[in-house]
Amino acid sequence: MIQRICSGLEVLRARRPLVHNITNYVVMNFTANVLLALGASPVMAHAVEEVEEMVALSSSLVVNIGTLSTPWIESMLEAARFASKRGIPLVLDPVGAGATQLRTTTARTLLTEARVTVVRGNPSEILALAGEKAETKGVDSRADSRGARRAAAFLAKEYETVVAVTGATDFVTDGRKTVEVRNGHPLLQKVTGTGCAVSAVVGAFAAVEEDPLAAATGALVVFGVAGELAGVSNPRPGTYGVLLLDALDRVGASDLRERAGITES
Amino acid sequence: MIQRICSGLEVLRARRPLVHNITNYVVMNFTANVLLALGASPVMAHAVEEVEEMVALSSSLVVNIGTLSTPWIESMLEAARFASKRGIPLVLDPVGAGATQLRTTTARTLLTEARVTVVRGNPSEILALAGEKAETKGVDSRADSRGARRAAAFLAKEYETVVAVTGATDFVTDGRKTVEVRNGHPLLQKVTGTGCAVSAVVGAFAAVEEDPLAAATGALVVFGVAGELAGVSNPRPGTYGVLLLDALDRVGASDLRERAGITES
Amino acid sequence: MIQRICSGLEVLRARRPLVHNITNYVVMNFTANVLLALGASPVMAHAVEEVEEMVALSSSLVVNIGTLSTPWIESMLEAARFASKRGIPLVLDPVGAGATQLRTTTARTLLTEARVTVVRGNPSEILALAGEKAETKGVDSRADSRGARRAAAFLAKEYETVVAVTGATDFVTDGRKTVEVRNGHPLLQKVTGTGCAVSAVVGAFAAVEEDPLAAATGALVVFGVAGELAGVSNPRPGTYGVLLLDALDRVGASDLRERAGITES
Repeated sequence: MIQRICSGLEVLRARRPLVHNITNYVVMNFTANVLLALGASPVMAHAVEEVEEMVALSSSLVVNIGTLSTPWIESMLEAARFASKRGIPLVLDPVGAGATQLRTTTARTLLTEARVTVVRGNPSEILALAGEKAETKGVDSRADSRGARRAAAFLAKEYETVVAVTGATDFVTDGRKTVEVRNGHPLLQKVTGTGCAVSAVVGAFAAVEEDPLAAATGALVVFGVAGELAGVSNPRPGTYGVLLLDALDRVGASDLRERAGITES
Repeated sequence: MIQRICSGLEVLRARRPLVHNITNYVVMNFTANVLLALGASPVMAHAVEEVEEMVALSSSLVVNIGTLSTPWIESMLEAARFASKRGIPLVLDPVGAGATQLRTTTARTLLTEARVTVVRGNPSEILALAGEKAETKGVDSRADSRGARRAAAFLAKEYETVVAVTGATDFVTDGRKTVEVRNGHPLLQKVTGTGCAVSAVVGAFAAVEEDPLAAATGALVVFGVAGELAGVSNPRPGTYGVLLLDALDRVGASDLRERAGITES
Repeated sequence: MIQRICSGLEVLRARRPLVHNITNYVVMNFTANVLLALGASPVMAHAVEEVEEMVALSSSLVVNIGTLSTPWIESMLEAARFASKRGIPLVLDPVGAGATQLRTTTARTLLTEARVTVVRGNPSEILALAGEKAETKGVDSRADSRGARRAAAFLAKEYETVVAVTGATDFVTDGRKTVEVRNGHPLLQKVTGTGCAVSAVVGAFAAVEEDPLAAATGALVVFGVAGELAGVSNPRPGTYGVLLLDALDRVGASDLRERAGITES
């Protein structure tokens, strides 16, 4: 797996895939900078009149429901359906699913109406999508991950997708195979949009790696290792956010080989 | 007062209150990072379909009118009324009131239709809300503060609220008691959204401190002292914005005791 | 020319012109910070109900089509027409023109219905506006600049405007005179919104410099030299973005005289 991730990162930097993000207002700038630092090309477009054209130009689509409204939901559905039809990898970040009905419903509709390649969420969001009881405290929930594995496996099978859950323990599952990733840094919780950024990075990997399980795992490992590199000097949160971008630019195969914490099962 | 502020900050960091922000596009990312660095949990949501649910999950609501449009105004009113009904602290930042009729009217409607706990603005915005003549130069006005005290006292009484005015001299009033705060740093004017961030920090304090005057004072002191800490190395504006987040993470009781400049009258 | 640019920068910092930006969600925060660091005053407002009032208060208007939607297009047109009528300098950044029909059409409509002072784009956007074939890869295209000069000259004459093209070689033309600018740094490509920021800086210069060719040239030189200053320590992209703001704050006449690479023809 680690060799495959290193190759994926190399290919990503060589091809600079265009990743189309329909994402929330809070993280747009940071997401774009994360993708640029990593070596991909970001584009943001949400008008229903142009989403199909933009998806057609892109190598993957990332839909993030962090700041929803009716016209955006319409565009997300249009773009997601179009990506599915064209076989363009589609990543869903169900931010705040479980916190409000609008978010839970929108995320489920996207899962039903489109062919989602990877869902990336935190345990409470994944539990909410699976219909189990979960308390979501805003969008940076650290809900007890009990049940999250079962919920992820259920979703993966139900929607023929791959589910990546980040939290106390990160894991990725397609409903049969599960990969655990033990990378990252506590300071990632102190910078807004790091979860959303992981989802965008999954989109970048999915653009160059056909196997969704490997793409999601690669994104989690690369982002997590960059998070570790950014934290070595034990900075405070403002500086950490800057160093995280620097680390995404510099993280390479040797860092990944040295630090990747992957267990396949 | 200083002891109360130190306790407030400690409680805030222990409870990590969820602060719901309906705020402008320009400052969303920075606001979220400010709240995270300080120790609170930010959430942003503006769809009329979900604002009530999100307010219900939150410990306070901050409404900032910096980039208005009709659907957002509707959601702000809905959220603000709901927060009032539920007794959830509500902070209003009337960005650009006086600059356009839409902003002045929207801010006044919010004051009339909801129970605003604290209004945080600059002198020209406060003057405009009070109906006195004030020239507003964009949103970072440093209008002469003459009359701002009278306007603030008038608003505080008229709407049974607390008014916090930041500018050459910061002050907080409930119409009877006034507290002057002499903290801050000139470089705060060179980073966009620092005023909006103060309002969000007022929201975080109001979530853990029942007295609105103390909550607003605490926010001004903590943010102002963090602004001073960030400026000690005399950085330029880009670096200063990063150090400000670092300072919000590290500011503690000893910094506050050493630096707080509070005069009650 | 260089003397004129130095004076322009000095006047800009003395007057702190209010620059009204109707721009995309991704870059709003960075744009505001760029303008503040440079010494101008940013304001963002997009509601059709208030754009005229805000334009009337402003010294220039910058319209950037990076994240379009129908209500925003309506406001952009309203604001642009009003600025034209009042003689307020108007800068157009046609982000992604050529990538989707909506963007190409909107940019052309703005050029037709308003008096655009300066268009600032990359070669593929300028080619797309001129109606020539250009492949746009998202919004950070580095399309071959063949034809871009001809396209720029055509647009400048057709719409009686000045066209500033940034890319491998920057140049500014009014259709007769052309100025080449050889400043900048490769890392500008690794920070999102640097192109959009240049457009905002053109707006700031146009507020204090009556000749559009000189205003656009000044903006390109000052931003490019700041980009070079930020890159001297060879930082990675996160740090570079911070240092770029610092450099915009500190760039002065001696830096410009030493580094400006201008050729008039």
